[in-house]
Amino acid sequence: MAGTNSERIMLAEGPAIILVEPQLGENIGMVARAMANFGLVELRLVKPRDGWPSDKARAAASKADHVIDGAIVYDTLEEAIADLNFVYATTARSRDGFKPVRSPVTAAETLRHRFKAGEKTGILFGREKSGLSNEDVALADEIVTFPVNPAFASLNIAQAVLLMSYEWMKSSLDDVHAVPFDAPEQPMATKDELIGLFDHVEEALDARGYFHPPHKKARMVENLRAVLSRRAFTTPEIHVVRGVISSLDRFSRRGQRAPAVPVRGDEDTDTDGDASGE
Amino acid sequence: MAGTNSERIMLAEGPAIILVEPQLGENIGMVARAMANFGLVELRLVKPRDGWPSDKARAAASKADHVIDGAIVYDTLEEAIADLNFVYATTARSRDGFKPVRSPVTAAETLRHRFKAGEKTGILFGREKSGLSNEDVALADEIVTFPVNPAFASLNIAQAVLLMSYEWMKSSLDDVHAVPFDAPEQPMATKDELIGLFDHVEEALDARGYFHPPHKKARMVENLRAVLSRRAFTTPEIHVVRGVISSLDRFSRRGQRAPAVPVRGDEDTDTDGDASGE
Repeated sequence: MAGTNSERIMLAEGPAIILVEPQLGENIGMVARAMANFGLVELRLVKPRDGWPSDKARAAASKADHVIDGAIVYDTLEEAIADLNFVYATTARSRDGFKPVRSPVTAAETLRHRFKAGEKTGILFGREKSGLSNEDVALADEIVTFPVNPAFASLNIAQAVLLMSYEWMKSSLDDVHAVPFDAPEQPMATKDELIGLFDHVEEALDARGYFHPPHKKARMVENLRAVLSRRAFTTPEIHVVRGVISSLDRFSRRGQRAPAVPVRGDEDTDTDGDASGE
Repeated sequence: MAGTNSERIMLAEGPAIILVEPQLGENIGMVARAMANFGLVELRLVKPRDGWPSDKARAAASKADHVIDGAIVYDTLEEAIADLNFVYATTARSRDGFKPVRSPVTAAETLRHRFKAGEKTGILFGREKSGLSNEDVALADEIVTFPVNPAFASLNIAQAVLLMSYEWMKSSLDDVHAVPFDAPEQPMATKDELIGLFDHVEEALDARGYFHPPHKKARMVENLRAVLSRRAFTTPEIHVVRGVISSLDRFSRRGQRAPAVPVRGDEDTDTDGDASGE
């Protein structure tokens, strides 16, 4: 699955990101970086305040040069969206009007669906200070808003672009719980290996008088086995644990003798408790 | 539902965000802002390079002062996580070892589950240049990684914190498709209102000779009704549309006469086409 996802997310396709009158070149650069992180490339700028191209934008883009180089500047929002079929407006506050309001997940699913159907789509992001005007929003088909903390709802423009780009990427995954790489595959231990561990530990402890008093031994073994089997060991993990036991069992500390008095199980653990936990 | 969600997301609770040897105060500030956006407050800093407190951090936090003021500095990662029960390490690349790797969605669900069970949790984020070391990762329970574009995988630290904070917030929602506010509730139009619109439009057009030639009228009306009913109008929308029709029907352009020659339906539309679209 990881391989399949990797191939798919190399695609540099998806909605255009349209910044309406962005003010700071740094923000445009961070937008470009966020887009590149999630495979988007098409950046459109409506009247960037400090002009274009922008050295500050390029520096802040952290090598997302392909997005910066491909950015196109427009005089009006109408021109910037002229070739698109479907447009979302991002906004943090409720607007009067007839536009449906969608969550980022719903919006990304809709954009993916329309993308697959061959439509050209875009997402509008507003000015740093004031967001999108009602006139800007009126040009969009639907509104998307973020589930932010109402007491601290103002998202930086690059953060807003990041969240939509991230949801766009996620909408390409068959399973949002999938990961692109995983820990090295390890075979789960067999019961034979687990019982070998039990025997190893119990023999080494028995040799030290750990199971004391003798009439409690059965219960102590039961608790110990519960602890050792609480989580499913892999075969390599069993090997590591047995290596630890062997080292403790067979060798003294360097320059020290093994202790003369046996360490008993009833001295440092509550052996009447349930070691398997809750 | 919006009300319920708003109450819940006012809670300033959740995993601690732990930055391991962050370098730039600006980044710490942007992290604080991202946390505040999604209701997280507990920021821990392990050996911030440029010291603490930081004016640059405060400025970049854009008024997330409660997060900045509450930040605690530690000398070691071990101390920073000492009181926690469960810790995620964020990393963009595969690591050797036994740690399970989770998606942000899975990680947020796990954190929410453990939070509800009364556990204290945290998420580790690495240095700007080099991320988390293998020794850092070894102190975590599991790894979380982002579904980024493999060709441009490096996330800014504040962007990474934003994504995890966002998923944390989403994990509190019963439905990721829910939105905190919606367009004003409008009653859907009744069929009676829709037929009233049909009659209004058709009468106004008929008075102008639009339905020409007469033997095509039935088909033209059919197509026109398909267009008008393609999307479900609300009652206020019907009122707006009927107001438009009335204005066009009853008044001339200011200073102009109504045109002498009737505009016919067959002159500017393909009335044999299927106006209902595909």
